[in-house]
Amino acid sequence: MDKLNMGKHISNKFNEELEAVRNRVLSMGGLVEQQLSDAITAIQTADVELAEKVLSNDHKVNKLEVQIDEECVHIIAKRQPAASDLRLVIAIIKTIADLERIGDEAERIAKVAKESFSNDQQQLLVSLENLGHQILTMLRKVLDAFARMDLDAAYEVHRQDEQADRQYEALTRQLMTYMMEDSRSIPKIMNVLWSARSLERMGDRCQNIAEYIIFFVKGKDVRHVSPESIERTVKGDRAP
Amino acid sequence: MDKLNMGKHISNKFNEELEAVRNRVLSMGGLVEQQLSDAITAIQTADVELAEKVLSNDHKVNKLEVQIDEECVHIIAKRQPAASDLRLVIAIIKTIADLERIGDEAERIAKVAKESFSNDQQQLLVSLENLGHQILTMLRKVLDAFARMDLDAAYEVHRQDEQADRQYEALTRQLMTYMMEDSRSIPKIMNVLWSARSLERMGDRCQNIAEYIIFFVKGKDVRHVSPESIERTVKGDRAP
Repeated sequence: MDKLNMGKHISNKFNEELEAVRNRVLSMGGLVEQQLSDAITAIQTADVELAEKVLSNDHKVNKLEVQIDEECVHIIAKRQPAASDLRLVIAIIKTIADLERIGDEAERIAKVAKESFSNDQQQLLVSLENLGHQILTMLRKVLDAFARMDLDAAYEVHRQDEQADRQYEALTRQLMTYMMEDSRSIPKIMNVLWSARSLERMGDRCQNIAEYIIFFVKGKDVRHVSPESIERTVKGDRAP
Repeated sequence: MDKLNMGKHISNKFNEELEAVRNRVLSMGGLVEQQLSDAITAIQTADVELAEKVLSNDHKVNKLEVQIDEECVHIIAKRQPAASDLRLVIAIIKTIADLERIGDEAERIAKVAKESFSNDQQQLLVSLENLGHQILTMLRKVLDAFARMDLDAAYEVHRQDEQADRQYEALTRQLMTYMMEDSRSIPKIMNVLWSARSLERMGDRCQNIAEYIIFFVKGKDVRHVSPESIERTVKGDRAP
């Protein structure tokens, strides 16, 4: 709270609006997290009903994105925020775009849960679930970092993506080997591969959100810069 | 020009700033278009050098994104735009994010051009090139629509994505059949599949940009709404 400088506004109404829109982002994040968690559980337990629930809930995520976007544009037009307030609104606009796309990817994973797999193929799904849990942990951590605008936690998420990428590559190799050994399985395994790719992309999006948090707190755009440079930014002074 | 209401600002400086940032978006768009075009040509002619050029040029796209983003935040803070000016700035912030990701996908396609393919596999590449040309046409059209803030052109691009999706699905089936017939080819064909997926995603991003154009001109967010509803929006009145 202190970090967000909420106390400094002359207008209480402005405070309330910023706080409301931040809370809404956290609700949206919670919903997306639930969607991913349900999609993974649906694969784990071959629960078609739960997969259907994920598919039918996606529109709620989309609706929240459009609503929050509107609120942000409204705040900019009415309150004409500057400095850190403006950075917060911009960070929110970008964060919800990534959250919405994470929701889309969760939907793709839920579709895989609706297929049936042989006992043999179940082994591959375990690796997919492992990657899924790793990404879910990243998502939780970055949402938590967003809630507290915690720079160190954001940086940690940013670094974790590399680990997720490695796990994704190992899984891809495993899946390709399986396809080469049993070519009839290709269409089915391809769906597992797409899911793995979806998870890997979600990791990238968590990394994006971490970058928006760093942008908000430090006032520096750290996209497309080296990890070392980000580390210097995180450890340096705070922006005004 | 008339559509953009550029004449109405009291401050000439503001006009110039908005115009400068719009031109920069068009430069970025031109660069991304060139990257995609080069990536497709590199595959077509097995030109490793051209592929390398695409890879080494990606940082220019990234740099432009960060610069334009900064300019937009600066304009909001300094000029406190309202109504259609604010919508333009928001549309720009979102458009460049999609353009940057299209650039990333072009980079992925260029990587495939660095591999060698058998005569037999060349046939599959032709299908990939066809999809590539379709997406390139969509990208050109949406950038042109952006330059003129042309609602009808934006709507046309929005509809074209469906066609691109169908072509992508046909290509995917073709590639899977090939893999099933020659399992040793799997790792190589997988790269072609990823490229096809990259192209399909680029189409989605062109569709996103079309939606931002509609948002700017009509003041309505048409994401996640049915094509019929978008058509009604496009054909209805203009926003203030």
